[in-house]
Amino acid sequence: MFERVRESFARQGIMGLLGAQMTEVGEGRCVVEVSYSDGLGQQQRYFHGAVAGAIADSAGGYAALTLAPEGREVLTVEYKINFLAPAWGEKLVARGEVVSAGRRLFVCRAEVFAVSAEGEETPCAVLQQTIATTPA
Amino acid sequence: MFERVRESFARQGIMGLLGAQMTEVGEGRCVVEVSYSDGLGQQQRYFHGAVAGAIADSAGGYAALTLAPEGREVLTVEYKINFLAPAWGEKLVARGEVVSAGRRLFVCRAEVFAVSAEGEETPCAVLQQTIATTPA
Amino acid sequence: MFERVRESFARQGIMGLLGAQMTEVGEGRCVVEVSYSDGLGQQQRYFHGAVAGAIADSAGGYAALTLAPEGREVLTVEYKINFLAPAWGEKLVARGEVVSAGRRLFVCRAEVFAVSAEGEETPCAVLQQTIATTPA
Amino acid sequence: MFERVRESFARQGIMGLLGAQMTEVGEGRCVVEVSYSDGLGQQQRYFHGAVAGAIADSAGGYAALTLAPEGREVLTVEYKINFLAPAWGEKLVARGEVVSAGRRLFVCRAEVFAVSAEGEETPCAVLQQTIATTPA
Repeated sequence: MFERVRESFARQGIMGLLGAQMTEVGEGRCVVEVSYSDGLGQQQRYFHGAVAGAIADSAGGYAALTLAPEGREVLTVEYKINFLAPAWGEKLVARGEVVSAGRRLFVCRAEVFAVSAEGEETPCAVLQQTIATTPA
Repeated sequence: MFERVRESFARQGIMGLLGAQMTEVGEGRCVVEVSYSDGLGQQQRYFHGAVAGAIADSAGGYAALTLAPEGREVLTVEYKINFLAPAWGEKLVARGEVVSAGRRLFVCRAEVFAVSAEGEETPCAVLQQTIATTPA
Repeated sequence: MFERVRESFARQGIMGLLGAQMTEVGEGRCVVEVSYSDGLGQQQRYFHGAVAGAIADSAGGYAALTLAPEGREVLTVEYKINFLAPAWGEKLVARGEVVSAGRRLFVCRAEVFAVSAEGEETPCAVLQQTIATTPA
Repeated sequence: MFERVRESFARQGIMGLLGAQMTEVGEGRCVVEVSYSDGLGQQQRYFHGAVAGAIADSAGGYAALTLAPEGREVLTVEYKINFLAPAWGEKLVARGEVVSAGRRLFVCRAEVFAVSAEGEETPCAVLQQTIATTPA
């Protein structure tokens, strides 16, 4: 199940570049994670917001794809992200879910957490997003 | 001039990972570019939205930093990005500018263009953003 | 409890004009409702999005005020709202909550539901918002 | 010209309630204004953000309608608004324009200004918006 979701994710060069992985996928939800490396930091040495944005957008978009009709792809129309706290940690986890599924447009949400070596999670970003389905 | 802007940009690991460069900086404005490489693509083989998001956020944030008081850093509070068209091209250029400069909060905007080998520009994303200044 | 929240709401002329009422308020949450009247409709005869935007922004902002230090007011820095479905119904209910409370900035969320005469709720909008606290 | 735009605006009860008027309309642009009255104020006695949101959303949406094919209506998918400064003044003016016109989705922008009795304009909000066209 969800092979097309995993296959689509695997074809995304940017996710490979970041070292991001899709660790869970279900009906209307998807989890994308990335481990810390120096390339992902920013000037104050925590995960750069661009990484949170990338995996949150991806988690939301793939959550939508799980509910899209066969033979259709998804595209991000727009998203908005709020940063809540500095993203210190061993990894960053984005949990996306579908809020509303229309015929052509989906509204999704994602939450991003920084996870410490001990497994403690700190919320660090929230995203709200519009996804369109398109012919594949 | 603007040394602290260029130095801050240079310290951002993620910009190095993407191969992004700050090509212009002025009072209240900043341009960030990135050339295409396979790592930046997505499943349909154009620049991934995450790249547009990353350089647009960066162009807006550094535009704000040019106007921030000495001794203060900038942090992205939130941004919202609309994708206008597929980002095919040789490079992606984000032009950021300050819309409103407050004491603690800035509102910025950025436009992202895909640039063909012949230099033709196609608008592909617009971003609206809130930036906070913080003690360095 | 929460007198300052109710008093602040009562002073807002626009809420009176719309006929909106604060029906619940608690730690980090607030509910604002409005009953249908012709003045609130739009060209296709359901609640206009501006009404959903107004009560959602208000519900989020007052949710923040419940957690703000004494002697400080709140101001909306920005918000983003997605419309999920046409808002047909007897009344519109916005439920706001604080997602993250910082020293100067809060991130809030609100959901808006259209409620039928039989009490059935249809989700019709979601809002994500940044609130600043300021000296009163 | 633009009769359907003016007619659609005239049918919006909420615009009548606020006392808003469409003062200009052209290809891909639209201006909506509202004069101050006590009902539009908020707790600190300037135009409430909900009024800025309402007329900015309206100005952007009607700018889109000027470019929509005959026989199609427009609906706001989502918008995001940043408040730049307190909106003191005699009236509030929202200028909307189309940034990108697609087959089904438009991206629009609006700027809101507070206008003093002497005609001086202060920028007080900026909006970025997604509009969908639908069968009328």
